[in-house]
Amino acid sequence: MKKYLLLILIIIMCSFQAQKPVKIVFFGDSITEYGVRPDGYITLFQQKLKDNNKAANYEVAGAGIGGNKIYDLYLRYEEDVLSKNPDVVVIWVGVNDVWHKRLFGTGTDWDKFGKFYTALIKKFQAKGIKVTICTPAAVGEKTDYSNELDGDLNKYSQIIRDIAAQNNCGLVDFRKTFHEYGLKNNPQNLDKNILTGDGVHLNVAGNKFVADAFYDALIK
Amino acid sequence: MKKYLLLILIIIMCSFQAQKPVKIVFFGDSITEYGVRPDGYITLFQQKLKDNNKAANYEVAGAGIGGNKIYDLYLRYEEDVLSKNPDVVVIWVGVNDVWHKRLFGTGTDWDKFGKFYTALIKKFQAKGIKVTICTPAAVGEKTDYSNELDGDLNKYSQIIRDIAAQNNCGLVDFRKTFHEYGLKNNPQNLDKNILTGDGVHLNVAGNKFVADAFYDALIK
Amino acid sequence: MKKYLLLILIIIMCSFQAQKPVKIVFFGDSITEYGVRPDGYITLFQQKLKDNNKAANYEVAGAGIGGNKIYDLYLRYEEDVLSKNPDVVVIWVGVNDVWHKRLFGTGTDWDKFGKFYTALIKKFQAKGIKVTICTPAAVGEKTDYSNELDGDLNKYSQIIRDIAAQNNCGLVDFRKTFHEYGLKNNPQNLDKNILTGDGVHLNVAGNKFVADAFYDALIK
Amino acid sequence: MKKYLLLILIIIMCSFQAQKPVKIVFFGDSITEYGVRPDGYITLFQQKLKDNNKAANYEVAGAGIGGNKIYDLYLRYEEDVLSKNPDVVVIWVGVNDVWHKRLFGTGTDWDKFGKFYTALIKKFQAKGIKVTICTPAAVGEKTDYSNELDGDLNKYSQIIRDIAAQNNCGLVDFRKTFHEYGLKNNPQNLDKNILTGDGVHLNVAGNKFVADAFYDALIK
Repeated sequence: MKKYLLLILIIIMCSFQAQKPVKIVFFGDSITEYGVRPDGYITLFQQKLKDNNKAANYEVAGAGIGGNKIYDLYLRYEEDVLSKNPDVVVIWVGVNDVWHKRLFGTGTDWDKFGKFYTALIKKFQAKGIKVTICTPAAVGEKTDYSNELDGDLNKYSQIIRDIAAQNNCGLVDFRKTFHEYGLKNNPQNLDKNILTGDGVHLNVAGNKFVADAFYDALIK
Repeated sequence: MKKYLLLILIIIMCSFQAQKPVKIVFFGDSITEYGVRPDGYITLFQQKLKDNNKAANYEVAGAGIGGNKIYDLYLRYEEDVLSKNPDVVVIWVGVNDVWHKRLFGTGTDWDKFGKFYTALIKKFQAKGIKVTICTPAAVGEKTDYSNELDGDLNKYSQIIRDIAAQNNCGLVDFRKTFHEYGLKNNPQNLDKNILTGDGVHLNVAGNKFVADAFYDALIK
Repeated sequence: MKKYLLLILIIIMCSFQAQKPVKIVFFGDSITEYGVRPDGYITLFQQKLKDNNKAANYEVAGAGIGGNKIYDLYLRYEEDVLSKNPDVVVIWVGVNDVWHKRLFGTGTDWDKFGKFYTALIKKFQAKGIKVTICTPAAVGEKTDYSNELDGDLNKYSQIIRDIAAQNNCGLVDFRKTFHEYGLKNNPQNLDKNILTGDGVHLNVAGNKFVADAFYDALIK
Repeated sequence: MKKYLLLILIIIMCSFQAQKPVKIVFFGDSITEYGVRPDGYITLFQQKLKDNNKAANYEVAGAGIGGNKIYDLYLRYEEDVLSKNPDVVVIWVGVNDVWHKRLFGTGTDWDKFGKFYTALIKKFQAKGIKVTICTPAAVGEKTDYSNELDGDLNKYSQIIRDIAAQNNCGLVDFRKTFHEYGLKNNPQNLDKNILTGDGVHLNVAGNKFVADAFYDALIK
């Protein structure tokens, strides 16, 4: 009798363990900080999990702070990400590393961008966390590469693509997919109001676009 | 008898006047300053005139000074260009207006770039001088728009194209033609040594490319 | 009899000519643009002329435009200043030449600042206009030279002092007098609200301070 | 008999422990990187220990890398400093945090400068390491605060002084002592060749000045 009880207990425990949800943390700047708003991409991502009856399998959290650059993430990854015990970390950063060169004279050198990015990934991977990284989408949505910072954004995006390959990370290439979306949907070459409201931060269409892209990349 | 003599004299003078060579002044920055060197584009342009037996019809001079931006040209156009009594002025400037933002914090705002450029053109046109203007070719020759300043260079080039149209100027669109040349001749996506030696200043191929482009644009 | 009449007429005309008011134009940036407001320094300057029964002897006008740097003044001096036929021009510029380096990457190189400043003075002096020039007062009012731009403001102020001496211009040294005022009246080392409202633009005390300084410098 | 042996052993061990030299690591940028050269301040510091018969009591190492800013130190403190098991760490950084704003658009925001500096100090103190920190000496040696970056250097120096007080660190205030030295020894208001060779990096006099200052601050 006792034997059967134990067996049942083990089975129940195993099934609980199997049901333990995968914890995903989105780690980034203001774009991610806004992602947890009611209309934000993280909220939409969670809604999509519910719509597909997968809400129980995933736990999702945002860890975005406005103005953050790659080294700001490095300074706070323990307190703000490791503390959440994630299984998956999605890093989306880079806009400010480029933009703040012009705005405040405090952007990030491209070589140090790569060094901090790689160091951050290794810290997560050393804990067994899966890492997916993303290219910066846009500072200005004009499609002819005449947005002031397009050159540097393209350069830093390539650095991120290379880092993803070198470190076996997932990659969500928003720089590429936003540009392709713009070529189709921005015939007037507007610098905003396509997937962003101000050239940088996601509008309604942008939040949906990003939520769908992350869903495709992260959810089986 | 005296009347006839006078008439003949007038005819001779007119014919001399008709043979007066067209004076072309190239007005710009270091790229043009180097243009008058033995291997420079202005020297090659003069050589091409000789090769086509047109040397007597044109007089050519350079007025380039390293580091010049559009407002530097505006400050010195009387002393350095009007003083040469040109029939045609070619303005080629813009690299430093963009580049010096990053290098020294002293680039040119895009709206003031347009204002000074237009004011300069009007000063020349008010003297009956024909004006041809050029887009900045490159700061870095990578063809995928990942050179740091590509966004701003594309933006300022479009401003120049618009100014040319608004002011009935000739246009030599080096931004466009250098990019097209690179797509054909720079399969490795190098950032220099295609038409420039350092990403900005013309190498042997670049000086020939530019001399030919100006010849096609200016000489009938 | 006619002779006497003519003589009287001449005397009257001369006396009228003597009474023709001296025309003063204040030429500068936003600080001067705001100077013509009801509480602005130009308005206070005019009021002080009235209080001293000298209003009939002077005619005063402002020609300030926000964001202007020295080369912007050079571009518009004919249209905005010479057109007013001034006897005296007061140039007060420099804050944006330094500040815009940081704000937009479009400040003015110190050597070109000097070149444009000198060229502008010479244009006025060639018309017989007396020129008084001023050092930039402040970007931040802390008195221990820990305002971010203090180094460059001190450097550009010295350039202006040298230019005044070299070109026999009047000088109103606001950089020096604002600092001295702060040492006496800013014991808490505040960065604004002493003579400015925001570190740059004059508050009530600042407008009075500046109006008095110009009165002392310009009015006999 | 065994008891005595044990006692002797303990005494010997204690005496060894007492003689274990204090390990000092100088952690910083190019100024510190050059400090280990034959004429560098770290070498002179070691020489002074020898001259005072204290060489056996201290072990000294440099950990400077050119171009480093505060966050670069944060990225490499484990590998380059903790790995040396220091008893004392001297942090001297800040010049590039200010200077690179202008040079490359990649300086450090003042608030993040403070955050990284405090985080770095806490990492060392958590290991029981004593920390001494230093203000940046100079970018240009003119004594009238007309060096371009004086405002920001004064501001960041005050941040460092506040951090030292808040975290019970030693402080070597080179910003203050270099300025005082200049007031006495730089009557011509030169921008270099007083304590530096180029306005930033120490010359012979500067290396001696710094070595002496560190000796006074660190050695009893």
